Order: sequence, then C-alpha cells, then structure tokens
Amino acid sequence: MGGVTDTLQSASLTRLITELSRLPGIGDKSAERLALHLLRTPKEEALGLARAIEDVRANVRSCTKCFNVGEQDPCAICADATRDRSTLCVVEQPSDLWAIEKSGAYRGLYHVLSGRIAPMEGVGPEHLTVSRLLDRTREGVREVILATNPTLEGDGTALHLQQKLESRGIAVSRIARGLPSGGTLQHASRAVVADAIGGRRAVANGGA
Amino acid sequence: MGGVTDTLQSASLTRLITELSRLPGIGDKSAERLALHLLRTPKEEALGLARAIEDVRANVRSCTKCFNVGEQDPCAICADATRDRSTLCVVEQPSDLWAIEKSGAYRGLYHVLSGRIAPMEGVGPEHLTVSRLLDRTREGVREVILATNPTLEGDGTALHLQQKLESRGIAVSRIARGLPSGGTLQHASRAVVADAIGGRRAVANGGA
Repeated sequence: MGGVTDTLQSASLTRLITELSRLPGIGDKSAERLALHLLRTPKEEALGLARAIEDVRANVRSCTKCFNVGEQDPCAICADATRDRSTLCVVEQPSDLWAIEKSGAYRGLYHVLSGRIAPMEGVGPEHLTVSRLLDRTREGVREVILATNPTLEGDGTALHLQQKLESRGIAVSRIARGLPSGGTLQHASRAVVADAIGGRRAVANGGA
Repeated sequence: MGGVTDTLQSASLTRLITELSRLPGIGDKSAERLALHLLRTPKEEALGLARAIEDVRANVRSCTKCFNVGEQDPCAICADATRDRSTLCVVEQPSDLWAIEKSGAYRGLYHVLSGRIAPMEGVGPEHLTVSRLLDRTREGVREVILATNPTLEGDGTALHLQQKLESRGIAVSRIARGLPSGGTLQHASRAVVADAIGGRRAVANGGA
C-alpha cells in the first residue's frame, strides 16, 4: 500500500484498510471494498458497527464454568435450571455451541475448549480449558459428548479427551459422522462415504 | 438468530454479529467468526478498528473536482502540479483509481463516477458524476480514457460516455482488453479469447 498511501495522503482510510485486513479471511482487496462501503453507507450504520465493537469489548466475558461467551457469569445456559446437568457437550468454539443450540437437538450443558489440540501450531491441551473440563466431570456428570469438529485436529482432540475421561466411569460419546442430510453419495468425498458405510446402523428391531 | 439470542442473552454480541453481517460479502457465519475474533483479539486491536471507522467518517470526504476520496479537497492527485492535466481517466470507484495508481502506468488526472450505469438496478447517468465529468472536459482536457470495468454494465457506461464526449472534439479511448498477462489461451473464457483476437495489434513497424 506504500505508493498508494503516498498518493492518496489519506491516513484515516489507509489505517481503516489496514485494520480491516487484519481480520481473519479478509484480504487486501476485500479490506478496500469494506472500507469504501463504510465510507459511503449512512453514517449511523458505520458508527453503529464501531459502537458494537466497543460494547462487546466492554460487556462480553467468558463464563467461568463452561467458557461460553455472554454478558452474565455464569452464562445463560449454565444458569438455566431446566437444562440437564448430567450431560456435557464439548465443543471447540462458542460458534459451535450456537450451531448446536440452533438445531434444538440438545438440552444439556456445554464445555467450550476455546480451540483444539494442534501440535503443528504448538497448541497443546494446556492451552485449552481441558483441566477445567476434567474438574467439571466430578460435578454429577454422567455423559460427555465430544463434539469437536470431524477434522484431523478435532478428531485428535476428541481422542485425547476420550483417553483422559474413560478412566472416570463416565460415558463418553462422539458426534455422528456420515453423509450430510440432503447430500448425495455421488458428490461426497471418499472419506465421507467411508464414514457413512463404516458408521452404518441397524434399522430393524427399533434401530434408526 | 432469534432462538440463539434468547439463549445467549448477550445483546452486545448479537448486535455486533448483526452489524457485521450488513457488510457486503459477509454472511451470517462469517459475521459470527469475525465477532468471535473481535472478542478474543487483543483489546487494542479491536478498539483500533472501531476508532479507524470513526476517524474515516470524521475525516474523509469526496474531492469536489474528481470525486476521489481523501482528507483534502481538492484531493492529493488533483492538487499535484506535476500531473498531466490534459488527460482524464474515468473510473467507477476509488478502488479502481487505487489499482491504476499502483500500476504506475498513468500520470494524468482522474474522474470517479461513483458507480456505473445499471438499468436493472435503476441506476442512470443522473445518479453518477457524469454531468460534472462533462463540465470538466471544458478545462483544457484533450483525452478522456474510459476505464470502467470490462463488464456488461461497465461497457454500457463507457458507450454512454463515448456518445456524450465525441461531439466535443476530445480524443476518447477505452482501456485495452485481452488475455491477462500471465494467463493462458487454454484456460481463458471464449469472450476473453475473442477480445484477444479481435483486439490484436500489428507487431512490425514499431507496433507492440
């Protein structure tokens, strides 16, 4: 951006482009496009975004029980007396928790790892909330659902947790993998088809 | 987001996700990812983005001559006495101007249309800076380079401007189209190959 900065002599705009290009998944060209949008959109909308960022940093914190994010501590889910406290669902990120909540398929509590074990990036269990998870299993937990993503690192993290948990007399389960609902065998990758075959379930005698 | 909002009870985070998803090209999932990033990144970086947005809205304006954006009026390019004032390069957006400046291939002045004629979206010449462009051609301009994008609407805009300008005794030119440098005939679309053949230039007698 050096040459263009000199020509435009607009320090504010250059700085906004730089700040935007620091966001994950936003390249230089996208940052330019977003900066022009923020310059042209109604002023209230642009300033609304700036204030929303400031508010989130002022008001949102991690739940000290499950490491979900929210404005209360404990978070709304941990504080909800109607939820099943004997089941913990372990996820990598709050956004995974949001996806499970949207599905409506789960009524227990969560535990957010805040990442996954990634040896290539130097991320070990000690950088995640693993020890707090192990502490929590002493609080009347009967089942832990390992809902890390079905990726190399998510699977490795699940394996690590499984080994840590299985000596504690807790039922440990892993989310199902297979063909995505609405998908087709023809277009699925070999790994997905192999999961679908290997994970097949009996359909007679009440199986599903 | 309704159900999740109720569950999370985090008005700040929901509002940040909503504001981010208003940005062009940012869907709901990307907005969630960016919001979590802004929550976790060092506080100074998140607040730096908020302040950059505020600064741009406070300090950056349109140049009243060429409609480029900057902190000065006239902009740094219009104010630069070393630039060739007899040539105007017409672009759709300031980001197009930045791309041309980065190329180092042009030393004249610019005119930013602030869009392109798009009948399907109800955008006509009267919504752009076309009449100011025609006014400017009276100020010693000898050539106008039409550098709108080589798209259906960019071409239509260039055609409209060409018709308006050609009665004024000004040389009107259009940026070259053809195979992109580094590209291959094999992978180019039919339209690109047709442009490359149709726009061929003699190479003998000093042609390039």
